[in-house]
Amino acid sequence: MKKLEIGDKNYLYPSPIVLVGINVDGKPNYLNVSYCGIVNMVPAMISVSINRTHYSIKGIKQNKTFSINIPSSDMLEITDYCGMVSGKDVDKAKLFNTFYGKLKDVPMIGECPVNIECRVIHELDLGGSNITVIGEVVQAYSEEKYLTNNIPDLKKINPILLSMYEFNYYNVGDKIGKAWDAGRNF
Amino acid sequence: MKKLEIGDKNYLYPSPIVLVGINVDGKPNYLNVSYCGIVNMVPAMISVSINRTHYSIKGIKQNKTFSINIPSSDMLEITDYCGMVSGKDVDKAKLFNTFYGKLKDVPMIGECPVNIECRVIHELDLGGSNITVIGEVVQAYSEEKYLTNNIPDLKKINPILLSMYEFNYYNVGDKIGKAWDAGRNF
Repeated sequence: MKKLEIGDKNYLYPSPIVLVGINVDGKPNYLNVSYCGIVNMVPAMISVSINRTHYSIKGIKQNKTFSINIPSSDMLEITDYCGMVSGKDVDKAKLFNTFYGKLKDVPMIGECPVNIECRVIHELDLGGSNITVIGEVVQAYSEEKYLTNNIPDLKKINPILLSMYEFNYYNVGDKIGKAWDAGRNF
Repeated sequence: MKKLEIGDKNYLYPSPIVLVGINVDGKPNYLNVSYCGIVNMVPAMISVSINRTHYSIKGIKQNKTFSINIPSSDMLEITDYCGMVSGKDVDKAKLFNTFYGKLKDVPMIGECPVNIECRVIHELDLGGSNITVIGEVVQAYSEEKYLTNNIPDLKKINPILLSMYEFNYYNVGDKIGKAWDAGRNF
């Protein structure tokens, strides 16, 4: 085993790809985000990090809310497109069917299999390229066809994964074991 | 399209599974974590959220450092096992070949294809079940066999994904497109 130094990079592969929904000046905007993750179990909290120069930062400040929308692999092109253009220049609200849930200022994407409506409870600026917002989950939404036993089914959702430094998107592969169970065989 | 309310849960599927390395009282401990994500591009920063009752919290306070170790799918059983037992009761240092990098108090797992050494730059306690620590990446490590063009290759790493509420582990599937490129076809 010869370990090589490969640099001070974010080699946490892969990242889930989501479309973050934010109302800016009262109009829905959607941005492609891979810097996101769960930060708390109870209550449910998710972090999203957005480049500080991005148009949507303004909407976060205005509403203190956002949505996480999980696109399926068959939405790859439109999802990637949302990461290539700014809401400053392109009206991305026109690309999707927007719906609203419990909070009236959080736009969500009808076409995405899973939608998570969040209220910002903390903002973090560590001085780097990104601003991190932490949202508490208010409510999640899905359709019957994506559920198994009332829970979103990963294979039915068929989400997109990003391998950032390779610039590649992947989908999810095979089920390889049960969590909090496979370890019994060790 | 009929959207159903499915609860205030963390339905951000899937999560990457990592083994977090922390020295506790000077001895390596490794815990299975799925609550992690990238929070900043430049400088590279990663967040890890650990249940506040966990043994390793003590080590974070002692050293202000941790490592992220990405296990491959063929390490599924030992990885799941690390999430089933506490370092309070089981000496998990014995399970792996530990190595150290630039920082002398950050244990890393030789068997994992990618290792990321982090210095804690922020701790966040939002009052929930978990404590979130944000680490700035000091250095990442891998072996030649896992690299393509000097970058960790996702298919060679073959990481583990978790679908938390389904209690299922998955591996990564097929390459489905190029990032910042597939959107040109839209």
